[in-house]
Formats: sequence, structure tokens, C-alpha cells
Amino acid sequence: MRLLLSAVMSVALTASAAIAADEPINLRGMGSFHVGGRIAEVKGKEPRMIQRQPGGPLSKLDPNGQFMVDQMYVQYFLPQNPKGKLPLLMWHGGGLTAVTYESTPDGREGWLNMFIRKGWDVYISDAVERGRSGFASPDVWSGEPTFLNYQDPYERFRIGEGEGSWNADPAKRRPIPGTQFPVEAYDNYMKQSVPRWLTTDDAIVAAYVALVDKICPCVMLAHSQGGAFGFKVAEQRPDKVKAIVAVESATAGILANAPRLKDIPVLMVWGDHVDAHPRWAAFKKIDSEYTNAIKAAGGSVDWINLPEIGIKGNSHMMMQDKNNAEIAEVIQKWLVAKGLTN
Amino acid sequence: MRLLLSAVMSVALTASAAIAADEPINLRGMGSFHVGGRIAEVKGKEPRMIQRQPGGPLSKLDPNGQFMVDQMYVQYFLPQNPKGKLPLLMWHGGGLTAVTYESTPDGREGWLNMFIRKGWDVYISDAVERGRSGFASPDVWSGEPTFLNYQDPYERFRIGEGEGSWNADPAKRRPIPGTQFPVEAYDNYMKQSVPRWLTTDDAIVAAYVALVDKICPCVMLAHSQGGAFGFKVAEQRPDKVKAIVAVESATAGILANAPRLKDIPVLMVWGDHVDAHPRWAAFKKIDSEYTNAIKAAGGSVDWINLPEIGIKGNSHMMMQDKNNAEIAEVIQKWLVAKGLTN
Repeated sequence: MRLLLSAVMSVALTASAAIAADEPINLRGMGSFHVGGRIAEVKGKEPRMIQRQPGGPLSKLDPNGQFMVDQMYVQYFLPQNPKGKLPLLMWHGGGLTAVTYESTPDGREGWLNMFIRKGWDVYISDAVERGRSGFASPDVWSGEPTFLNYQDPYERFRIGEGEGSWNADPAKRRPIPGTQFPVEAYDNYMKQSVPRWLTTDDAIVAAYVALVDKICPCVMLAHSQGGAFGFKVAEQRPDKVKAIVAVESATAGILANAPRLKDIPVLMVWGDHVDAHPRWAAFKKIDSEYTNAIKAAGGSVDWINLPEIGIKGNSHMMMQDKNNAEIAEVIQKWLVAKGLTN
Repeated sequence: MRLLLSAVMSVALTASAAIAADEPINLRGMGSFHVGGRIAEVKGKEPRMIQRQPGGPLSKLDPNGQFMVDQMYVQYFLPQNPKGKLPLLMWHGGGLTAVTYESTPDGREGWLNMFIRKGWDVYISDAVERGRSGFASPDVWSGEPTFLNYQDPYERFRIGEGEGSWNADPAKRRPIPGTQFPVEAYDNYMKQSVPRWLTTDDAIVAAYVALVDKICPCVMLAHSQGGAFGFKVAEQRPDKVKAIVAVESATAGILANAPRLKDIPVLMVWGDHVDAHPRWAAFKKIDSEYTNAIKAAGGSVDWINLPEIGIKGNSHMMMQDKNNAEIAEVIQKWLVAKGLTN
């Protein structure tokens, strides 16, 4: 009954949120490109002959030579009747790709479609080493990829009730009561997960800076680890980032650099049950300190804890939650209020 | 002068090829999903505490447990006024992702946009382990990823004049005279390259079969290594694949199974300079034998060597070549002739 009610509410909210999912999406253009990247040199390794296809001819694989590394993939969608004054860049969190913003694990529209429908030129991207950005060989990059097991996001992302809430048997899992996350589609969520390195932050920031230099002035919407990158990039390009929407940013930027953001309106958005989960309370504290440092320099930071405006049950993956349209509308209203739409 | 002439010709061809790139793309829907996948178990490894973000709190990374692996990412675009009778699935080649079909390295429209504009429901996908499909840990998969160096595709994909044609200094490279590949954007092409394993073919085929079971009946367009997967999948699902366009398929399917394709119209498309490059001549021979086996069983295979119909200079990456619109139109005409459009 709770599920049914939630579904009904979700439909009602979608209908009220500007444009319904069954309206056509009319684009004046769409495409993709890579930004950044550098050529790395590898020497002294032994070439070998490999069969690239079973039954195919042998050909040489040379582990030496020059390799393109550190590039970042970007995909864009430009609505026929743009209403946003600037492009909207959406950056994903750790262990994920831009798929975060596409269809939800249970097959509803995500924020990509929603913000295109609201009239924004949207640019989504896979951070360096993730998804369609590719990754470099161990000869070029130090460190190794890390992999999330099946229970990790369930217990960490406020889907389940913390450590121990996951079980291999779905019937025995303990989701947070009233969660908005589509728990029935958790399998599909895990399929979106990609490995990540812990040693590539500098390369990731460099590629994001290259993106900002190519596309901005712009509005940035960043989630989780993407928020940490977003604030650091904004610190480097405060003249080009005209607004920041940080969705459960983890962590924030460099505290000493926060004053550089004094002319950039910032919105911090947090979901439900944050204070009850120490890991998220810790991130929230980091974001609060960063917020205070921006404000101390004369800047403007708005902060929305969703439960405080009556929006309950949101997980860390709120852009995929059942009420994602409602949260998109909260963000849209803030962007409109900041004068960023026509 | 040759470059200028080629650019002028390319514009003229684009304009003649149905719908120009400046017409809006109107979609009744777009989205993404993953298909396939399985849960793999890892045991007996030591958990460790990691800092996922510099300055962030420590949290446990457990290399043990269940992991989602072998899934495949699919993105779809559904035109407002569909003209194709069936969905069109586009499969990429080795060491690449669906980006193959998106914007070209020099920023023109690719076959994705072109076939959407022609009225096809288009599904592009990243094969298992590539791009947004993610990849599994060494605890789950045997083998290791292989990486293409900067000169490899240049010399192998009939962009340059074979082995030794590449040089770190772009001015000293020796492209095939009259090549249609946008050599000035070779950097961007290399940014599209992703690592690949040589041990994941079975997982890739299984995920493609899952895609076919979900979406088809359909038309399949497959390139290079994607052709080898495509034919093998069609052998397993001959009732669901209603036509195959194989673009320089490398290799083909399993010869003994070729008769299973006797009711599927097949188009084999090959570019220029194939016979002069032994590696490609070898692939062409494999495709010819597969063709003969289909025909011997009463099936229908059409074969287009582009130079024989007056289209010269095409590389292995013909969907990105300067005249990609012209080749898309050749394929479209075949699909129309086979009765696959309304």
C-alpha cells in the first residue's frame, strides 16, 4: 500500500512539475566529445602478438609508445526552445558515470530528461577513468581500481538502515522505512556502478577545468564526489561558473579557497536521515564549514535539507528516487529565483 | 586544396542525404538501461579502510562479497515520427564504445543522429567491460585489459599507409592519399579508445543476446569486432534479428552455424584499400566464406565494396569518415529496399 501510494504521489508530482514525460523532447542538436587528455609515453616493455578475435589473424600489441590518457567524455543535448540562460553541466558521484542522470534504475525519467524538458542545454560527462572516458594502463597510472560490492551502496547511501541492513536475499534486506529509493530495482542500480581509482583526482579536476574552459559560462550541478570536484574547479574558474547546485557534496572544496566563490550563488541540497548516519553527518559538517567560509567572504549559500521543506525519505541517490521530479523542481525554482532562466 | 575540396563535397553530400544536420531532432523518448549481468561471489580477501575523498572520513572497502558483473549499457533514442519498422541496434568495434556512432572526432554528426533523423528507433550500447558497462575485478575475471597505443589504429585501421606510417610529429605521418578519415582530429579519435580484455567474448555475447531478447525483433548494424558478436548472436536468435548490416565485420560468425541465417537479409559493407592491407584482406576472406555458407543454405547476402560503387578513400572507421552521410545513405537505401521502412 505504501508503494502504491508512493507511485500515485510520484505521478501527481511529475504532472505538476512543468512538462510530463510523454511530451516529445525537441532538440536543436545533440552530440558528444572528449575534453582534456594528454599523451603519456611508455618504454621498455616487450611487444607480443595477439589474436584480437577468436579465429582472426595475429597482430602485434605493443605496450610501448604514446598513449592518450586523462581525457573526459561529454555528451550534450540542446533543446529546441532553450530557457536556461547558460548551459547546465551535470557531474556524477564516485564509482558512477553520467548514467546517474539518465533513466532511473526502475526505468523512469531522470534529471537529464527533466532539465532538458525545462529548457536547459545539458552537458553530462563521465569523469576521467570512468565510463566512456576510458582509463590508462598500470604503466601510466599508479594505484589500482576499486570495486564496490553489492551491499556497499545499499548500506552507505541511506537506502538500507546502515551497516548490516543488506542481505543476499532481497526479502531479508532492511530498507529505511519510507525510503524513496526504488529498492525493487537495486540490481539495476548496481549495474550502473563502475570501478574507480583513488589516485586520479588531479587528472579528473584538470579535465573538468578543460570542460569549463570549453563550455562555460555555465551552471554546475554536482553530486557527491562530483561536488568535491565541482567546488575545486569553481575555485580555479570563479569567473566562469555562474551558479553551483551541490547535491550531497562529498566532500567540498579547499576551505582556504572558499572565498573565491563569493560571487557564485550556491545551493546545497541534502536528503533525509543524514544526521542519523555518521558518515553523512561528517560530510554535511565539511559542507557546512565550506558554506561558512564562503559566507564569511560575503558570498551567498542557500541550504535545503529536504525533510525541512516536507520532502521525506530521500537517499543519497535522490536524482533516482521515486520523487526525483519533485526535487528537480525544487532546484529549478532556485535557478529561476537566481535569474538564470529566460 | 584536396582538404578544401573534400570538405565542400562532404557538405554537398550531407545536404543531399535526406535531412540536414541543422534540422531539429524530435524525440518521443530517450533513455538508457543495462541488460544482462550476473552476481559473482568473492571470498577470503582482507577488507581495508580507505579514504574515498581527500579530507573525507574513512570507510571500509570490502573486496569480498557479491559483485554485479557482465552487464551491458544501452542508450536509446526514439524519433517522434518513426519510419523504421523495427528498432535499429548499433554495435561498435573492439577497443571502442557506442561513441563510435556519436559525433565524429572532428565534430560532425555521426550515424546515431543520422539514423534517428531517418526515422529509426536507435539503440546504441557499450559492450560488456567497455565504457558505461563497467568491468569486473581481477578476482572475478581472468586476463587483463589491453591498451592501444597512439599509432596502432592509425596504422591498422587504414588511416595511414600501414606499418610505419605513423609518426609522433603529425606533419611526418603518412595518411593514405585521399583518405576520408578526419586525420586532423586523430587526437580526438584516440580519446574515444577504451581498454579491452581478450577473455570476455562469452560474457559480451551473452549480454547482446539479453539485449536482443529484450528489444527485438530488430535490425542490427555492427562494426568490426561487433560484427563477429552480431553474427554469433543472430545464430542464436535467428527469429529475432530481421536484418544485419555488417560494416567491415571482423571476424564473422561460426561457419558451421551460418545456415541459421538463411532467412535474414545481410549486407556486408567494406571500405577502400582493403585488399592492399593483408590484415583486412584476411578478415574479408573470413566474411566471404561466411557469406558463401549463408548463400549455400539459401540465404541472401549483399556485398558492397564502396570503391566499386564510386565511393573512395574510406577507412575502417567509415562511420566517422568525412563522407559518413553518404555511406549512411547507401545503408538506408538497402534497408528501404528490404522493406524495413514505412
